[in-house]
Amino acid sequence: MHDNLIYADKTPAEVRKLIAEEKITWQTSGMCSGYAQANLVILPKSDAFDFLLFAQRNPKSCPILEVTDMGSRLTKFTVENADIARDIPRYRIFEKGELTGEYSNIENFWRDDFVSFLIGCSFSFESMMLESGIPVRHIEEGKNVPMYKTDIDCMPAGKFSGKMVVSMRPIPYNQVVKAVTVTEQVPSVHGTPVHIGDPSLIGINDISKPDFGDSVTINPGEIPVFWACGVTPQSVIMNSKPDFVITHAPGHMFITDIKNTDLKG
Amino acid sequence: MHDNLIYADKTPAEVRKLIAEEKITWQTSGMCSGYAQANLVILPKSDAFDFLLFAQRNPKSCPILEVTDMGSRLTKFTVENADIARDIPRYRIFEKGELTGEYSNIENFWRDDFVSFLIGCSFSFESMMLESGIPVRHIEEGKNVPMYKTDIDCMPAGKFSGKMVVSMRPIPYNQVVKAVTVTEQVPSVHGTPVHIGDPSLIGINDISKPDFGDSVTINPGEIPVFWACGVTPQSVIMNSKPDFVITHAPGHMFITDIKNTDLKG
Repeated sequence: MHDNLIYADKTPAEVRKLIAEEKITWQTSGMCSGYAQANLVILPKSDAFDFLLFAQRNPKSCPILEVTDMGSRLTKFTVENADIARDIPRYRIFEKGELTGEYSNIENFWRDDFVSFLIGCSFSFESMMLESGIPVRHIEEGKNVPMYKTDIDCMPAGKFSGKMVVSMRPIPYNQVVKAVTVTEQVPSVHGTPVHIGDPSLIGINDISKPDFGDSVTINPGEIPVFWACGVTPQSVIMNSKPDFVITHAPGHMFITDIKNTDLKG
Repeated sequence: MHDNLIYADKTPAEVRKLIAEEKITWQTSGMCSGYAQANLVILPKSDAFDFLLFAQRNPKSCPILEVTDMGSRLTKFTVENADIARDIPRYRIFEKGELTGEYSNIENFWRDDFVSFLIGCSFSFESMMLESGIPVRHIEEGKNVPMYKTDIDCMPAGKFSGKMVVSMRPIPYNQVVKAVTVTEQVPSVHGTPVHIGDPSLIGINDISKPDFGDSVTINPGEIPVFWACGVTPQSVIMNSKPDFVITHAPGHMFITDIKNTDLKG
């Protein structure tokens, strides 16, 4: 275990430098408090239109923060000139849907036809929920958020199709409306919930057995509330088996210069 | 002049049928009251990624309502199975940035690599402004909305770049805030204003001489308020000179089955 709290007050630029130097090689939750972190998907241009269209048709699962110019390793909007091939602590390469390796940088794999997609992450709205007095159970319990495959079909686009993955947070019944209105303010990090209450209605048979992450306590008087999850694009990519794709390793995010408060509206 | 009021209470399906039969061949403002109308851009797949990325980077100018599957003439989301090649009253074809013809349908031009983009239109938010008691001057004066080229650069994407075009509505000073909050609710039809007040700050030298549409009266106590305009993508396409593009003719819109009230949030 690494103590990420010592990086909570560092700037994103300071932490990205440590990541690029491979002095930070682990997951990034809690680093650079107040700044948005992002999921990564890199595809060759030949698959980029289908994936961008998939994101356009599924904005709750795939809220796009930035798409880089083809072939450019440098970001422009979420950070001015971050190096997408070095500034993330851990990368995964998938070939035809199979994980073929994990790497601390992807310089040796870079191609001139790569397009990088940075996708919003629920770390951002959780900090807004806490500021609004809404408890976030998995943080209280020191766990990863519970995530579930659902029977909700994403809107397919070109070669990409698959089911939506959701994250779940148990919310006291008298704060459910507030959880909706708080997350409504940030559509770029998944926005409002996709479902409130009975998990079986969206194909989740056992709430105590998440497909990813950890199970958390649901207390009496709490309602399970489900949000579209940033694991959806990775799940859809695995389902759709494109020839070559690079992602971040789960939890090993890209730390942007965008403040969570600037994601509103 | 055609009296479009007689089509105000028809359903979108009824009016699209008359358009497909070429019984309606003129502009569509005021038809199918309460339903969203859309701008059209059709590009070959080879240019579609750059244009979708341009729209993603410029959501106020190019709010995407639907992108069709490559080669499909049929819409899926804004209307179930409208024929994009017949259900618009007038089309324009541009080759390398030059207008080469206007057509009442584009069946003879259709290609298997075409991708169609349907883009939100300010007709939708004007009806919401009127419902909120905010006057819309060009409607009062029976004119087209005044539109201006600005010196605001759009974010370029691939081969597409250019300046933002804005529409202007004079708003009584004590209703300017309401005009912001009403249009904030509908990001898919341009959303909040891009500028309020002094036109020279965004490169407009003479408010009485719009670049497109008609000049309207600005009364004492009224502030000119500017919104990103759906003419921007056409202007950018002309600036960027792609090999082949089909658009609607100005004012001759695609009438969707989406109610304006369903565009909120």
